[in-house]
Order: sequence, then structure tokens, then C-alpha cells
Amino acid sequence: MSDGVGQVETKTLLVHDEERPLVLESGARLTHVEVAYETYGTLAPDGGNAVFVCHALSGDAHAAGYHEGARRPGWWDNIIGPGRPLDTDRLFVVCANVLGGCKGTTGPGSIDPSTGRPYGLRFPQLAVRDLVAVHRALLRELGVRRLLAAVGGSLGGMQVLQWSLDHPGELAGAVIVAASGRLSAQNIAFSAVAREAIMRDPDFAGGDYYAASVPEAAEAPARPDRGLALARMIGHITYLSEESMRQKFGRRIQDAVEPRYGFDVDFEVESYLAHQGQSFVERFDANTYLYMTRVMDYFDPFADAAYVQRSVAEAAASPGGATRYLVLSFDSDWRFSTEHAREIADELRGAGAPVTFRELSAPHGHDSFLFPIPEYHRTVAGFLDQLAGGAGARRAAAAGAGAGTGAADAA
Amino acid sequence: MSDGVGQVETKTLLVHDEERPLVLESGARLTHVEVAYETYGTLAPDGGNAVFVCHALSGDAHAAGYHEGARRPGWWDNIIGPGRPLDTDRLFVVCANVLGGCKGTTGPGSIDPSTGRPYGLRFPQLAVRDLVAVHRALLRELGVRRLLAAVGGSLGGMQVLQWSLDHPGELAGAVIVAASGRLSAQNIAFSAVAREAIMRDPDFAGGDYYAASVPEAAEAPARPDRGLALARMIGHITYLSEESMRQKFGRRIQDAVEPRYGFDVDFEVESYLAHQGQSFVERFDANTYLYMTRVMDYFDPFADAAYVQRSVAEAAASPGGATRYLVLSFDSDWRFSTEHAREIADELRGAGAPVTFRELSAPHGHDSFLFPIPEYHRTVAGFLDQLAGGAGARRAAAAGAGAGTGAADAA
Repeated sequence: MSDGVGQVETKTLLVHDEERPLVLESGARLTHVEVAYETYGTLAPDGGNAVFVCHALSGDAHAAGYHEGARRPGWWDNIIGPGRPLDTDRLFVVCANVLGGCKGTTGPGSIDPSTGRPYGLRFPQLAVRDLVAVHRALLRELGVRRLLAAVGGSLGGMQVLQWSLDHPGELAGAVIVAASGRLSAQNIAFSAVAREAIMRDPDFAGGDYYAASVPEAAEAPARPDRGLALARMIGHITYLSEESMRQKFGRRIQDAVEPRYGFDVDFEVESYLAHQGQSFVERFDANTYLYMTRVMDYFDPFADAAYVQRSVAEAAASPGGATRYLVLSFDSDWRFSTEHAREIADELRGAGAPVTFRELSAPHGHDSFLFPIPEYHRTVAGFLDQLAGGAGARRAAAAGAGAGTGAADAA
Repeated sequence: MSDGVGQVETKTLLVHDEERPLVLESGARLTHVEVAYETYGTLAPDGGNAVFVCHALSGDAHAAGYHEGARRPGWWDNIIGPGRPLDTDRLFVVCANVLGGCKGTTGPGSIDPSTGRPYGLRFPQLAVRDLVAVHRALLRELGVRRLLAAVGGSLGGMQVLQWSLDHPGELAGAVIVAASGRLSAQNIAFSAVAREAIMRDPDFAGGDYYAASVPEAAEAPARPDRGLALARMIGHITYLSEESMRQKFGRRIQDAVEPRYGFDVDFEVESYLAHQGQSFVERFDANTYLYMTRVMDYFDPFADAAYVQRSVAEAAASPGGATRYLVLSFDSDWRFSTEHAREIADELRGAGAPVTFRELSAPHGHDSFLFPIPEYHRTVAGFLDQLAGGAGARRAAAAGAGAGTGAADAA
């Protein structure tokens, strides 16, 4: 395997302004939307090799390669790069921070042009559809009108699914990993408690905790770090499988031969969670956490069965033909279990779409979608190769890279 | 089924004082321990019909019957009473609030005799063994020296298990329901986040949030209600099964035809959790929550295999013979799954103890142990009948009550 895409940087583009406002699903309008994004590889002259990567709740535009001076690569570097499943020798890969995010794309921490202060909770409520709309606005600026594939895990997969339904014929392939088409009551319950942790933090201040929220104050306001850290800790438990936690930590006591029988952090798993909470606070915004979890709670694209059927039919009748779906789940994922993925696959098949569904074995729980699991990577690579071949070129076979048993064999 | 045990009241007894201090597992001493308790039924002249009920994390001494003017009975009224599995026509049932509790038994909210102010976090750390020691001190005062059975669910079952090992020959039977002999990393993780929610609440004040903690203050200090409510919400998700949540709430929107897309409580499951959190705050103490979750984290009786073997052998050699165990789990319980129960059963059997283990089917998750599930009640009743018969009287057969297929048929 090669060294990856090397040094990269996050760029920003203004994709909506006064003259081209973004009208959201709710009817609200945003008159200034910037998007932070990265690209890897080169767009083919025929534009047929573009792949869009949709990130999950806590991701960002920096999916692959290294920022200048950084020691760690982007969050999905193991799957993006020369010779990797999202093969940048052949593909043009785009990743963008989502609308409502906190890593460069317009969100609740951005300045509201109408007040000159950060939106906070005055930022409009979002739907998955709105996130997709901004991805498309970016692609328009980049000169990409159709995608070989959109690919995403968790909330990223939900964006891919919504994209395929809202814009029939625009995606040759849709790779939906560890996602849900409809959160369960338990999923919503975990989200709700995480939001409560943030909103009950006295430093939350109704969402106006940014320095620019109170420019008249002598010192910057406190941020709801305690609440956000708690939210992350709660979430993190649901990202790992019980088995992976057992293997990783067991009941080992932290830095101590004897139990201390106190309320400090004694067990290693406590120390790990505390660290996860703290490091999250340093890189994430509490308001974005609220918006993104709410986006997921309300996501329910299959509620309108007629719409789904019409979308799938329109895609089939489009010049590029039907969108082909690859739906993947992991057997240890209890946040969005295989049941969620199977429901997505069943609904799409029921509407007449071509769907490859596969449950993969991996020990990392929901987080498995981020790991370089060989069978997982082979499946994604094989699916993309097939799409590229179907698009006419069979570059995959010629290059002989990233192949494997792949989707062709999948049930 | 009859009307139950009728009106009852919680009584209090001083069981440890300066002259009879309680020495804890940690070596710390308590020189004033009061116990709040209730009893139902009548102690037989031969003392052979006493059953002790050990309560779980949020329980108390009021297990059955009605307090004067109350609309709701005690927390386990469905299993205790005339003709019920813990049949008060035949048995003398005792339930006591645990040491470290907040419902009448000495705990972190009690006055520390050495300072005249509430202990707060200066209350010594506890082990399950210490909770059992205080139950035994109460029984001594009540004139009970041996038990037909100790019975408990969750943390209650852990007390029963510890009791049987620490005092061989004292229990004819041990009924351990929905319990664990050793918390998993995931269990500890949930406990840890709940504790963090409490301790990060600014009103926690290091545990000194009682009115008597700051008698010099003009008004009573605030309590860490936000943190405690959050802790309860987190815990509550783990008490219900995903399926029971789905059936109970699904994705229904609260009091609204259209989704409001806000951060208010929209979904019914959110409303339910918020209510659980709020009502818990009105009846429970945050410090007790910290102590009890820590007690569970550290519980690990099978770590000392030689001790377990010795205990089981001593019980077998005692006048009353071996303690007979009934270990029960529920198939929808993911907090303490059947795997936990099976481990308890396997460890006890491995040490030579007679164990009946059964997984019961019930939809309520961990909370199932509180529900009147017929097969569950029949099993417990049958097991107690057998114990009573084995004790010589066969009152069960004569009375013809509470029988059923029971433990005799269990695998």
C-alpha cells in the first residue's frame, strides 16, 4: 500500500449568497453559506470519476492525507489514496464539512449576517436533505454534475441515501455503511440524553457561549464543555461494542495496583471515556452536536413510500440508469445494527432499486466503519470497480488495483 | 389474589453505635448506623420462615403494602403478600434500606457524629459485603439468625450472592435475579458517565449540597438535580430493552401533529426520560447514587476462587446443609444479560453448590425483575416452597398456594 495522498489543505468556497440563497426544507433561508472541503485525485475530462465522501456526526472535510505539520492523517485515510478502495489514482474524491458543522462550513457558530453575531440556536433547524443540498452546491462550483458514487458511514450514509432519493440519476452508486433509515426509540433516547447534558450545562447560556456572542464582555464566556464532554462519553459507549470494550479495558484498574474505592477515575474504561470527552471538547462545538443529533432523530425517508418509489423509477429511467446501492452493516454494531441496514436494503429493493446488502464481521461496534477491515475494504473497492466498469472504461480491471471478491459475490 | 399486606410503616432501628461500631471492608468504622426497615407476616416460633428482600440501586425498605394515605404500594408489592410468591401467610418477610442509602438508613446524607454535619463524600466507601453486614445486624435485633431465603434483583441479587458466600450456612436459599457477579467494561462505562453527570454539576459542591452542610448560609444550597436527573436518564435507557422502548414509544411525536424540529422535547421517548429524571430527583440523593454505583463496579466475589470454594464447602457442612441457589435472568435484559447470570451459576456450580439457573422470557429488559411475569413468579414461589418443604414442614403443599412448575423442573 502506498503512502496515501500526502499533504493536503482544507479550502473554502462561498456557495450561497444574497443572490443565490439556500432555501432549507423548513422554508428558512440562508444567504451566506461557505463550505470547507478537500479534494484528492484528479477529475477526469469526462467528469465520470467523482466520488463524494459524506462524513458522520463528528467528522469534517479532512478525510485523507496530512495537514502541514500534522502527525495524524484525515479521519478516513485508510480507505482513500492511491491503490486504496477510494483509489485516487483513478478517482476524484471530494469531502466537505456538513452544513451546520463547526469545521469551516457555515453553522451555528458562524456569524448571522442579519445580526453580526453568531447564530447560536437561531441557526435554522436542518434536515439531511439540506446537508445534501450544500454538497451539491459545492460540486456545481467544482464542475461536477454527476457522481460515480457517494459514500458515507453513519450520518454520512444517511446523506448518501437522501441524496439518491432526492436527485434521481445523479449517483451511479450509493455506498451506505453503518447507517439507519429511521432511528429507533433507543437511538433517540441516547441522543436526547446527550442533548440534555449540553443544554443543562449552566455555561450553555442558551447557545450563546461564543466569544463573539458577547463582544461587550470583558472576557470570553465559558463554554458548555462539561455538557459536551458528557454527551460525547454517552455517545462513545454506543459506538463501541460490549466485546471490544471488554477486550480493550476489561476491569483493569488505572495506574493502581489496589482499588482505591473512590470516585476518581479508577477503571481504565473510565479514564478512556474521560479522555474521549475532553479531547472532543477541544475540537467540536456543542451547538453543532445539538443540530446534528436532531437531524438524525428526524431522518425518516421511507415514511413517504410513494416518493421513494418515484425516485427509484426516475433514476432507472435516467440516462445513467438506476442508482446501484451497496448497504453494509457490522455484526458488532449495536447503535445502528444490521436490522437498520436490512430495513434500508428492504425498502430500496421494495421500491425496485438494485441493492447489494452485506453484514460484515468486525469487532469494533459502530466505529467499525472507520477501520481498515479487509473484507469491508474489498467489498467497497469491488463495488466501485464495477461502477467504473459499468460507466464504460473498465479502468479497474486494466489497473488491476483494489479489486477482490467484492460486491459481485455479495448476497 | 388477595389485597396484599395492607397498611404498613417503615420503622427504624439503631444497629451500630459507639459500643458496637461497624467495621467496614475498607477498615473504616461507623459508630452510628440506623436502619430503616419493614416486615410483613409473622416470624414462626422456630424462626424458620424468614425471608430477607434486598433492594436494588434505587429501591428502599418499602417493598410491599401501602403507607398511610399513599396511592401506590411498595416497589415489589406484586411478589410479596398473602398467596403471592413471597407468601406472607407463611413467611416473615423483611426489607431494609441499604447502608449508604437515602431512605432512612445511615448514608452520605446522615449526620457525621464527629462533625455534626452531613457526611457527604466523607462517608466511607462501601462494598456489597458492608451492605450485608447491616442487614444481618438488623436481623439480629429482630431475633432472626438464619434465613429461609435471601431474595434480590440487580444490586439486590449481588447482596444475596455476597451474603451466601460470607456467611456459609446462614441462608437455606439464595434467589439471585437479573444480577451480575462482575460488571463488564460497558456496565462500568455507563456507571462512570452517570457519576460524571452528577459530579460535573456545579451544584454538586463536592457532595456538600445538603441544607445542613452549610447551616450558616442564609438559604439552603442548590442540589445537583440536573446531574442526578441526567444520571437517571442514562441509567433508565439501560433498564429498558430496545424492543420495549420501540413498543412503548416508537417514533411518536409528543403533543404535536407536525414535527417541530426544535431542541424541545419532541419525541415521546424524550418526554418519558425527562419525566423519569425529574421524578427521581424528587426522591433520591445524588451522593447515594455515587456510592451505590461504585459498590457495583467493584463487586467481584468470584475473583477469589479459593474463598468461594471454601464458603460453599462450609455451607454444605453446616447443620442446615448447602445453600441452594436460584439464579434467574431475562432474555431482554441487556444491562445484566443472561451471560452475567450464567457466569454466576457456572462459578457457583464449579465450587460445588446446588444451582438452579433459568433464563426467563420477558420484554421489559432489566426492569423485568420488578414485573409480575407469571413464569417468573411461579419459579420463585416453587423454589421457596421447596426450601420450606426441605426445612421440614411442607407447608406449601398443605396450603396449596403459590405452587406451580417452579424450580424443580428448571434446567
